[in-house]
Amino acid sequence: MNADLLARWKRIRGFAFDMDGVLSPAGLLVLEDGTLIRHVNVHDGMAMRVALDERYKICIISGSGEEGMQIRFERIGVEHIYFGVKRKLTPLEEFALYYGIGLHEILYMGDDLNDIEPMRSVGLAAAPADASRDALEAAHYVSPFEGGKGAVRDVIEKTLRIQQRWPGKV
Amino acid sequence: MNADLLARWKRIRGFAFDMDGVLSPAGLLVLEDGTLIRHVNVHDGMAMRVALDERYKICIISGSGEEGMQIRFERIGVEHIYFGVKRKLTPLEEFALYYGIGLHEILYMGDDLNDIEPMRSVGLAAAPADASRDALEAAHYVSPFEGGKGAVRDVIEKTLRIQQRWPGKV
Amino acid sequence: MNADLLARWKRIRGFAFDMDGVLSPAGLLVLEDGTLIRHVNVHDGMAMRVALDERYKICIISGSGEEGMQIRFERIGVEHIYFGVKRKLTPLEEFALYYGIGLHEILYMGDDLNDIEPMRSVGLAAAPADASRDALEAAHYVSPFEGGKGAVRDVIEKTLRIQQRWPGKV
Amino acid sequence: MNADLLARWKRIRGFAFDMDGVLSPAGLLVLEDGTLIRHVNVHDGMAMRVALDERYKICIISGSGEEGMQIRFERIGVEHIYFGVKRKLTPLEEFALYYGIGLHEILYMGDDLNDIEPMRSVGLAAAPADASRDALEAAHYVSPFEGGKGAVRDVIEKTLRIQQRWPGKV
Repeated sequence: MNADLLARWKRIRGFAFDMDGVLSPAGLLVLEDGTLIRHVNVHDGMAMRVALDERYKICIISGSGEEGMQIRFERIGVEHIYFGVKRKLTPLEEFALYYGIGLHEILYMGDDLNDIEPMRSVGLAAAPADASRDALEAAHYVSPFEGGKGAVRDVIEKTLRIQQRWPGKV
Repeated sequence: MNADLLARWKRIRGFAFDMDGVLSPAGLLVLEDGTLIRHVNVHDGMAMRVALDERYKICIISGSGEEGMQIRFERIGVEHIYFGVKRKLTPLEEFALYYGIGLHEILYMGDDLNDIEPMRSVGLAAAPADASRDALEAAHYVSPFEGGKGAVRDVIEKTLRIQQRWPGKV
Repeated sequence: MNADLLARWKRIRGFAFDMDGVLSPAGLLVLEDGTLIRHVNVHDGMAMRVALDERYKICIISGSGEEGMQIRFERIGVEHIYFGVKRKLTPLEEFALYYGIGLHEILYMGDDLNDIEPMRSVGLAAAPADASRDALEAAHYVSPFEGGKGAVRDVIEKTLRIQQRWPGKV
Repeated sequence: MNADLLARWKRIRGFAFDMDGVLSPAGLLVLEDGTLIRHVNVHDGMAMRVALDERYKICIISGSGEEGMQIRFERIGVEHIYFGVKRKLTPLEEFALYYGIGLHEILYMGDDLNDIEPMRSVGLAAAPADASRDALEAAHYVSPFEGGKGAVRDVIEKTLRIQQRWPGKV
């Protein structure tokens, strides 16, 4: 890892995640009434709990979003969940302002066209292994894990290990 | 890519997709009452929205089909959804006629025996990576992505990039 | 393929399939009331329809089994579905007797310990790529496809192509 | 396998499994009301049945847990199911005491931070292929199979084969 990238990891105090294709896989179930059902990943959930315990800030910003996912992420302790968002930069700036964090101290992970603007605005832009070509090109860091399959765990654990705040052996 | 194939990509003005094994994975859930539940892919959905915004025409032609998928694709903006089709060439020709597009200007993506006839009738026949042997042999282009896992995104993004109408960097 | 194995393929007139791990993946969903929900594969379904049209006989023999799967396979046209079976050889012999087929003319595909006895009784024993070690060792043929992900399509298409009864190019 | 590790396998009389990421995949479905739906693996289920028949003891220890999974595992014959556990070592010791088994005679399979303590307490600590880094480092044995995709089958079958109690050919 070059010095510039390492400096970016060291500055991170908050995480912002897209939902579909990042916290949940790009594939989702369609019920008979058109309701969408998503998968979540328990390793991601564990890492979010650890990060919140260590006083990192987390928000979720999605163009879609249903009740069940809201309940799931609230149980983990995520307080800033923005669903049904048109332009993602707006809630991202609101989240940063609320906690007095600079955008350069935020890691944003996204996977598609509507994530490019926030990815270009933050200190560290990340993408899952199976992100779209545009997101892969906009990312400072591409996780070896796919969306909904450990990509979120990967960037949280990496951040906390680099900052020596991960509870396991460092 | 040879010149003939590139010419085929450059001519495309409309897309026709099979559903099972193309827009959704070959694997589908069977509920207790026999209802089938499918997965869709958010990257495919994003690409269909972009293509429709850019005035490309899209239709979906399936031998099966349930209410939930109809709702899903209508929300994306797809207006021509043919479900419960016996012989797929008929709605394909209807779709082409409606928009005044020639069959040589249509990309059809299919994955099994009942897709061979429409695949042989269009300008560009495509198949997902996990299509059946007959569909793979009938295809001008085989996507590296599987059905329901990005194959549709792949052919739409490829078409629009070749035609310099994809919104990201070209 | 050696001559003995080819002779086995050429003799096949009927197919017998285990369900869990063969027609559906080894992984299945558990609903809140303990109900099990399975995946099926559309490529498998297409091949079963083709085989039945070509007058091959098909039965399904499972130690478990729920209503939804019964409905699914009946719609495809499978008439001999044995669910909740303790010892699988019994319905297999019943199926063979009913159609006047010898066990040496049957291809049985299984994936675990309770499939070993029928696998040793038929003319051609097959296993999916992800079968248990015992089933892999008992098989004359191991499909490159996993259970519920094309293993059934593979053995049906292979049989019909060898016997020049597959509808595509041979 | 070195002599120390083989000795550990030979001593095993009981199995303790985490649920999420071990008996079921790390990915789980979130229903509209926030209910979590998990996958189980039929190969794992078969192995648990064989082990129980051979008088091995099995318990399941999870920080989460819903009704449907309780029903599923009870049907297989697992009598010690601990759900909603805060600190996993407590029920593990209770289970060992109940059957008069030493912790050194137990194989514990876990995949994340809250499994490290029990993994360090037993005779043989195992982890699925896709476990978190801490669990992989704490494991004496890492299965080539992922959680919910055969990891449990692998360690049970391996134990019984080494102890010559597996019903297939040894």
